[in-house]
Amino acid sequence: MSIASKDGSTEDVAGHRIPAAALLAFAADIFRACGLSAADAGVVAGAMIEADLTGFDAHGVFRLPQYARALREGRINARPDLRLIQGGPATGVVDGDNAMGHLVMSFAASRAVEMARQTGVAWVGARRSNHAGAAGVYASIPLAHGMIGIYGAASSANHMAPWGGAEPLMGTNPIAVAIPAGDEAPVVLDIATSVASFGHIRDFAQQGKPLPVGWAIDRAGQPITDARRATEGSLLPIGGYKGSGLSLMIGLLAGVLNGAAFGRDVREFGTDATRAANTGQFVVALDVARFMEPKAFAAEVDRHARDLRASARLPGVDAIRLPGEERRRRREERSRDGVALAAALVNQLDDLAASLQVAPLRERQRP
Amino acid sequence: MSIASKDGSTEDVAGHRIPAAALLAFAADIFRACGLSAADAGVVAGAMIEADLTGFDAHGVFRLPQYARALREGRINARPDLRLIQGGPATGVVDGDNAMGHLVMSFAASRAVEMARQTGVAWVGARRSNHAGAAGVYASIPLAHGMIGIYGAASSANHMAPWGGAEPLMGTNPIAVAIPAGDEAPVVLDIATSVASFGHIRDFAQQGKPLPVGWAIDRAGQPITDARRATEGSLLPIGGYKGSGLSLMIGLLAGVLNGAAFGRDVREFGTDATRAANTGQFVVALDVARFMEPKAFAAEVDRHARDLRASARLPGVDAIRLPGEERRRRREERSRDGVALAAALVNQLDDLAASLQVAPLRERQRP
Repeated sequence: MSIASKDGSTEDVAGHRIPAAALLAFAADIFRACGLSAADAGVVAGAMIEADLTGFDAHGVFRLPQYARALREGRINARPDLRLIQGGPATGVVDGDNAMGHLVMSFAASRAVEMARQTGVAWVGARRSNHAGAAGVYASIPLAHGMIGIYGAASSANHMAPWGGAEPLMGTNPIAVAIPAGDEAPVVLDIATSVASFGHIRDFAQQGKPLPVGWAIDRAGQPITDARRATEGSLLPIGGYKGSGLSLMIGLLAGVLNGAAFGRDVREFGTDATRAANTGQFVVALDVARFMEPKAFAAEVDRHARDLRASARLPGVDAIRLPGEERRRRREERSRDGVALAAALVNQLDDLAASLQVAPLRERQRP
Repeated sequence: MSIASKDGSTEDVAGHRIPAAALLAFAADIFRACGLSAADAGVVAGAMIEADLTGFDAHGVFRLPQYARALREGRINARPDLRLIQGGPATGVVDGDNAMGHLVMSFAASRAVEMARQTGVAWVGARRSNHAGAAGVYASIPLAHGMIGIYGAASSANHMAPWGGAEPLMGTNPIAVAIPAGDEAPVVLDIATSVASFGHIRDFAQQGKPLPVGWAIDRAGQPITDARRATEGSLLPIGGYKGSGLSLMIGLLAGVLNGAAFGRDVREFGTDATRAANTGQFVVALDVARFMEPKAFAAEVDRHARDLRASARLPGVDAIRLPGEERRRRREERSRDGVALAAALVNQLDDLAASLQVAPLRERQRP
């Protein structure tokens, strides 16, 4: 039995290790050069580097060129006016004013934490947002406040068909849940509702590797194994109709309920310059202290995590890993030793820096 | 491509059709005879018959003998004192006093709706509860109030191992989400986080059918195809580590956060007469009106449901069905024509009735 990677990250490739602080400063400089305020650039860069640190490389600085292009072409608003429309004591919708999704959802998660402090739980959605990167980053924001976080997104691109369908009219709509622990790593799950995330498919395409059967099908229902052809068909959901149903529910909650795009209203991010994506997301903050003494809860989560980890393993399995463990290990290791970036990516980022008159990464590498 | 049944129900078998009202009265009589108050018996019977009506037969009157035994042996409390401990304006935990789970979660869902009316969203958990039957029944309670419902349960029995593990230390923890629509059926998803629910496995065992590979494995990781042997191993989660992670998260939220059983603390329902199950569940009510005008929301859900249903289908697929459609169709059909029960089940229920001096089903059948 083979255990797939828990978070879809690629393992460190031979390449340049960039100190985390240098990478953060670089990304913030890029966003400032694209017109963001210093404060907003810091928030967006922070959310993006958090993806690199925790192993969700496909949502990290890898995406900088794509975002910079969207900002420079005016498809994403660099100087947004974010507003929380608070529908109730425990609910709200952020009008993202077509800002970077990272900014919108960092804002939404902070507001959710503030509101949940008053009410015990808060549900804050967003409309007129954009792709926000790694779901786990936002679900994890409440953790520092002793709260559980839940995040869902109606993807900014449709790569899944409804169950039985051949047309990709739904996203691989991710869900993330983050639960605080004590000495153990917080339990953090961050999954697409498809068998493989689109970022994962793109990795395979870049490496020229064939897709396993069961990841994508064409319009005739036949497996697509050429990763570059995956967009001609649709990605398959986890658990058949079950994952398809989860994707639908997340899409209705994150998209339709917030007045954001879903179904036929979704356009592929980056391909349609004529209108904003109107991406929708939501974040829930749930205050542990309203249910039990937080230390007692943390001790219980620790106890159960240890029970599960120490339980009998299947033959060939070296360790039972809970969601969040690898995330914490990577974050510690990369915060200490830097983030390994492939040479080709460093070149690409430095080309971008040159075009924006920003100091290149290569000059920032020394820890 | 074959489309699996969306809700794990068995199709109507040749058997007796019992009018829904007669079945409800019969179940309520049984519960009264087991010591429940008339009001509580009505609530529990209502939640149970709702499972029969919507097609979740494995959670319907089929379970009456098992519950009657537990009530008569005092393993479930027939005269409970339910209490809502309201931790915050939008959060609470119901102490179920070891009552029937159907009673606890009907109460919890009603309280969640009341609280969400004030705050926009409410999260109500339960501890010292018991198995509550079909998840979708409770997620659907907020629908009548214009609210979205979400329900999760830490199963009262462990049938799944953590990912990579061989010991069943987690439940097939179900999640249900119910979203109101306009003319279309409410979108209602009710799924176990395992590929097949335990009820589904039991159906296969009763019918002597072999399990498909991919449903259950033994402690050596080999497929179990003999349904009667499924409890010797563990059921497989949807999407590998993803479904396993979802089950873990639902277990922590429904079990640990409420001070209810999870992991090694869970005992098999019905096998240990010495202590209460301490089952945990939660229900969330989310008020659509706090986000947008409910009629506008319903119209949008209708529009998207029609878009998805009318989209291109894979070869061999007769129709794209959204979660909730079959539920509504079955509910209408069975409310009108009665619930078909196999003759063997009617006999079993009438034996139970005789032992409790309750009028038998066979005398109630005429519509």
